[in-house]
Amino acid sequence: MNYLISYDISKNSLRTRIGNKIIAEGLNRVQYSVYMGVMSEEVKISLLQWLQQEISQKGDPTQDTILILSLTAHQVQNIAVIGKNKYDLDFLSGENNSLYF
Amino acid sequence: MNYLISYDISKNSLRTRIGNKIIAEGLNRVQYSVYMGVMSEEVKISLLQWLQQEISQKGDPTQDTILILSLTAHQVQNIAVIGKNKYDLDFLSGENNSLYF
Repeated sequence: MNYLISYDISKNSLRTRIGNKIIAEGLNRVQYSVYMGVMSEEVKISLLQWLQQEISQKGDPTQDTILILSLTAHQVQNIAVIGKNKYDLDFLSGENNSLYF
Repeated sequence: MNYLISYDISKNSLRTRIGNKIIAEGLNRVQYSVYMGVMSEEVKISLLQWLQQEISQKGDPTQDTILILSLTAHQVQNIAVIGKNKYDLDFLSGENNSLYF
């Protein structure tokens, strides 16, 4: 399944730590505070638990938020991009693998 | 249709102007650089044209980006929220209107 994760995290060190973890789980940073990519159900559940723990232990509970949305590959491929188009939407959607098999 | 709009805009004044416009078109600010809400096809097309023009005339074409994703109400209602849960997902999805009619 495709996912979009976005965050508002006030503490710099925690924001960096969480961004690195999201990338380590296979997502791509598409904007300063927005990540997209494909995760298995197992990886998603484990990441959600880790994020929950980090925010509750080290975050600011009065303002920090992380949003996780599930998307279809079709939605990812049909994102409208305004400005610098640095995105390979087929790659982000996980659908371009079919070219190689 | 439900939409998520996120941006990376370097110039403060342009970011504020664009954020205000997105809100004026009926979306809600859910994070620092992320907005969600319901737009008609007509409003969406008009907003995309306006955003395109603003970014090309006043933005930094080497780095500014705006992403617009279409979502289903079901996806909005099922967003996973970590941290401060300040969101009324039924309201954001546009589905709670049925309570009032």
